[in-house]
Amino acid sequence: MNTANSALYQEIQHFYARQMRALDEGEVTAWAQTFEPDGVFDANGLPEPVRGREVIESSARKAWEQLAAEGIQRRHWIGMLDVEERADGTLLARHYALVLTSRRDGERAQPTSLSCTCDDVLVRDGDRLLVRYRTVRRDDLPNASAA
Amino acid sequence: MNTANSALYQEIQHFYARQMRALDEGEVTAWAQTFEPDGVFDANGLPEPVRGREVIESSARKAWEQLAAEGIQRRHWIGMLDVEERADGTLLARHYALVLTSRRDGERAQPTSLSCTCDDVLVRDGDRLLVRYRTVRRDDLPNASAA
Amino acid sequence: MNTANSALYQEIQHFYARQMRALDEGEVTAWAQTFEPDGVFDANGLPEPVRGREVIESSARKAWEQLAAEGIQRRHWIGMLDVEERADGTLLARHYALVLTSRRDGERAQPTSLSCTCDDVLVRDGDRLLVRYRTVRRDDLPNASAA
Repeated sequence: MNTANSALYQEIQHFYARQMRALDEGEVTAWAQTFEPDGVFDANGLPEPVRGREVIESSARKAWEQLAAEGIQRRHWIGMLDVEERADGTLLARHYALVLTSRRDGERAQPTSLSCTCDDVLVRDGDRLLVRYRTVRRDDLPNASAA
Repeated sequence: MNTANSALYQEIQHFYARQMRALDEGEVTAWAQTFEPDGVFDANGLPEPVRGREVIESSARKAWEQLAAEGIQRRHWIGMLDVEERADGTLLARHYALVLTSRRDGERAQPTSLSCTCDDVLVRDGDRLLVRYRTVRRDDLPNASAA
Repeated sequence: MNTANSALYQEIQHFYARQMRALDEGEVTAWAQTFEPDGVFDANGLPEPVRGREVIESSARKAWEQLAAEGIQRRHWIGMLDVEERADGTLLARHYALVLTSRRDGERAQPTSLSCTCDDVLVRDGDRLLVRYRTVRRDDLPNASAA
């Protein structure tokens, strides 16, 4: 593990901190801009992969507005990051994701939680990173790939 | 993202690991020493901001002693760290915080949890970092700033 | 905090991401290979420390097979890492661990959770790290060391 790899690992941690906070706090356009124009969001909680930055943005905005209307604050935690630099110049960033859902109602209730994995193919675009293909797998749904 | 930034980001991660463990394990004086003498702890779960290292320490000690008397082990997890170096030389370290509260009673009950954000203004003091102003916002309370 | 320390801290984060995922996804042999041949796994949830890589592996395999048969997906999150380089050349890596347990039954139930601390004595073996002695303490069990 050399210094270059160390800086890359840290850069990706920082990237996720900013990306997920944008989504959690309703900056949906800024969040969608972290995907490639033809990026894909593939989740086992969805009927089919969402293709293209514009559709990814509009889907996320609809979800955000519904949560906001219900007084729900969602937080995406990323952890256990594993980074692989691939021969084609892309990065495979695999991590765990924990989604915490709180209600801003003053009832001091605990957040509900959801455990997932997320595998991202990231590409460099100048001084920033973009998501080319995101694969989210919820741990509470049957694991098709293990079948 | 250069190597210097990478080292700073990591230094702040390490700072929080040590700071939060000190609080969680009852080293309240050591924890309070990570605030500036006139540091502020501003939380939306408190009636007003706590001002000054001495008052921060005495408030935390009272809370710790109550938890210890009840056999409660609290753990503060910090994640999704975003660091910004500001023009005035201070650092803005924004992160998510998850507070896990376990009972050491052998009943194998799950911890309760609480989701927050924390924005710290950090300053460098020789080879260490100090908190100048901490802003904690619980996600289960109404978001005044969004009103 | 110099660059070398920064790279080491990051290397240990990366080590845990890979080590814990191996265990969580049933690559038990790969996981056990991250312990020294005479490594020790000492947990306050077990009647006595498990000694030696082979016994560590067989114990973990038995636990994994039972979880898999029940359709349970477990995830070990590591956080709040604190690293100390010791005079004898070993590393003391102390961290918090959160164990999330989901059922892959499509019922969309939340994972159960467990809060622990983990103190690892790590040693370098060429370009990899190995666990010499792991001490896991569950926060829901009485704290013997505090008695």
